[in-house]
Amino acid sequence: MSLIDIGKRLYEASQVLATMDTKSKNEALKEVALSLKGHAEHILRENQKDIEKAIENNMKESLIDRLRLSEERIDDMIEGIHNIIKMKDPVWKSSEVWTLENGLTVSKMTVPIGVIGIIYESRPNVTVDAFSLTLKSGNCILLRGSSSSMHSNRALVYAMKEGLKKSNISEEVIGFVDDPNRSVVKEMLTLNKYIDLIIPRGGNDLIQFVVNNASVPTIETGVGNCHIFVDATANIQKAINIIENAKVQRPGVCNACETVLVHKNIAEVFLPKLYDYLKDRVEMRGCEETKKMIPVKCATKEDWAEEYLDYILAIKIVQNLEDTILHIRKYGTKHSEAILTENLSNANKFLRQVDAAAVYVNASTRFTDGSQFGFGAEMGISTQKMHARGPMGLNELVTIKYTILGNGQIRE
Amino acid sequence: MSLIDIGKRLYEASQVLATMDTKSKNEALKEVALSLKGHAEHILRENQKDIEKAIENNMKESLIDRLRLSEERIDDMIEGIHNIIKMKDPVWKSSEVWTLENGLTVSKMTVPIGVIGIIYESRPNVTVDAFSLTLKSGNCILLRGSSSSMHSNRALVYAMKEGLKKSNISEEVIGFVDDPNRSVVKEMLTLNKYIDLIIPRGGNDLIQFVVNNASVPTIETGVGNCHIFVDATANIQKAINIIENAKVQRPGVCNACETVLVHKNIAEVFLPKLYDYLKDRVEMRGCEETKKMIPVKCATKEDWAEEYLDYILAIKIVQNLEDTILHIRKYGTKHSEAILTENLSNANKFLRQVDAAAVYVNASTRFTDGSQFGFGAEMGISTQKMHARGPMGLNELVTIKYTILGNGQIRE
Repeated sequence: MSLIDIGKRLYEASQVLATMDTKSKNEALKEVALSLKGHAEHILRENQKDIEKAIENNMKESLIDRLRLSEERIDDMIEGIHNIIKMKDPVWKSSEVWTLENGLTVSKMTVPIGVIGIIYESRPNVTVDAFSLTLKSGNCILLRGSSSSMHSNRALVYAMKEGLKKSNISEEVIGFVDDPNRSVVKEMLTLNKYIDLIIPRGGNDLIQFVVNNASVPTIETGVGNCHIFVDATANIQKAINIIENAKVQRPGVCNACETVLVHKNIAEVFLPKLYDYLKDRVEMRGCEETKKMIPVKCATKEDWAEEYLDYILAIKIVQNLEDTILHIRKYGTKHSEAILTENLSNANKFLRQVDAAAVYVNASTRFTDGSQFGFGAEMGISTQKMHARGPMGLNELVTIKYTILGNGQIRE
Repeated sequence: MSLIDIGKRLYEASQVLATMDTKSKNEALKEVALSLKGHAEHILRENQKDIEKAIENNMKESLIDRLRLSEERIDDMIEGIHNIIKMKDPVWKSSEVWTLENGLTVSKMTVPIGVIGIIYESRPNVTVDAFSLTLKSGNCILLRGSSSSMHSNRALVYAMKEGLKKSNISEEVIGFVDDPNRSVVKEMLTLNKYIDLIIPRGGNDLIQFVVNNASVPTIETGVGNCHIFVDATANIQKAINIIENAKVQRPGVCNACETVLVHKNIAEVFLPKLYDYLKDRVEMRGCEETKKMIPVKCATKEDWAEEYLDYILAIKIVQNLEDTILHIRKYGTKHSEAILTENLSNANKFLRQVDAAAVYVNASTRFTDGSQFGFGAEMGISTQKMHARGPMGLNELVTIKYTILGNGQIRE
């Protein structure tokens, strides 16, 4: 089927899905969960083909691990669906209702967006997570995974559609781009007639490609060059624990910390302790001043801008809070930023002046995450400012409609 | 100054403006209002140059009237500023605060977007309205008006900047593209580094140009092919008044009605009355069935799709509500749609199933407007679904930031 045909069917299906009640959507999700369980063997067999191809192509072991499915991982996806079933339906809620002088009553109601496209490089579980979130919020989904997980995604989509066939909701609410060529992505990005929103999930190259080629509205996700500022009054033990957590717990993710900025008045006490604690696990790169205090490699200008996604940490000594804010403004990606301090005025200044999706006082940046925030699963973490910022859960997958009730009013 | 330099200055200014308190912003707006009054003579003189050029170029009289400024129109702009001063500051408000199990308190705070570009063909008053709305919401503005109002806009910007010089807020919060070439618009549309959002206001050509060429996020505004559906149970006198209002009161605007859809069971009684009431003022074009009842011109397929913006009305007889919804889905632009009915179930179905920014029961579509809705002035009416939909006032000119307060929390 051509992409235009897929788009047209999704658009038609979206008009019906938008008016479905919560019960029907939840029952369809239950059928999909059952079907994934029933098709587990087929899914694992298809996944094995992707794994074999990845080995042939000498893919990195960590990436192969991301790609690999197992009974347990399929069960996790199913559990994810059941979590979304439990969540509140975000559609047809009113955040504001008011009545004008002339008696017209205006309500601002939430409604589904329509058709949401997702272009992703990540693990196959995104196929299931993204579908469940969009279905629960009344949206159709157009899936375009990476070519390396094509067999797995195809099998997952097949199982999900088989599940939908047993429900009141049409299998047409899922569109699957079964074409490994990048040209089809370009076509997707300009299909304004049928697609309302495209969310890219992957590396910076993919995201830039999408932003530069899309006429369909997009939401940028993911790139995170996150900083932790250790203020002069920081609690040293807490600071060490937080930095360890933000760097080491899972370095390959966007909310991991990449640079630590240390106030000059605490550096001499703090840095040796940090160094001792991390030196066996983390490669540290410091500014000139840092190098006078601990035996680390030299950080270049490139280090301040880099999202390592690895066991590497850049360290810079700063004069004061103002310096810190300017450094973050220059090198940050507006994802997650933290200050560790016991000074209330500095905490408030940091919260106000640092421009990012999530700004922390005395906590690890690793909390910027839909499930940590209590949103259930997430569609990604928006690092731009339109429509949604930070973790995108069900409530970010709706738009609004004004409904106006009158009894003959005309404008004067 | 090059556009990149203007962008850079705006970006810098936006970081300062974002943290300004309401009092400073209101005082700056007062100074701008005073300065516009003080520079009225200069503004009118410059406006006269635009008028003379427009006459030379044989511009339509109605367009020249839109361009023309007067003491009174300047006073209206000033009154607009004072209205915005009275409105609530939309920045640093929390719509949601919650505490996680681990004790972290998460607040979803409103913050300014940053730098907003506006590309407009409309009257010079947009220069002042757009500035006041963005300043009050803590945003910098990049203005690019049409070349036909270049002298007027330049004089208005000059006066506004002179006003800002007397306040605590830098004149750098206004950027003005003083270049009539379209190439500069294209440059503006890809200046992602410094511009957070671009709003085009004008005809469909301009809007499509912006959407197709922008990598900066955009909000589409304005095109409105609005319908009124006269259901079988509609109150005939109210229906005639509403259609007259929606068509005749100001036909050149996006919320005016372009097509009336009439239920077949009421058509024979209703259409002759509508015809008698409008025939001297409105050219009516009907479907085959309509023509059997009233002596109107024949409507072609093109009529259903056209936004006349004129004293022309298309009329179609429909079989039922389902027909109506399908017609609107096919030809509507998702702006404003109305049903006139005394049947509650049909009213509800129309509200739910018609996908538009504003959906009305028993009222004129002309109410889709920021000041009618009580938003004060508006930046335009969004006809897309991301970030803002319908009239965009102060509350639509902010984004959010999560602030998270902890005491040493790390992720497990």
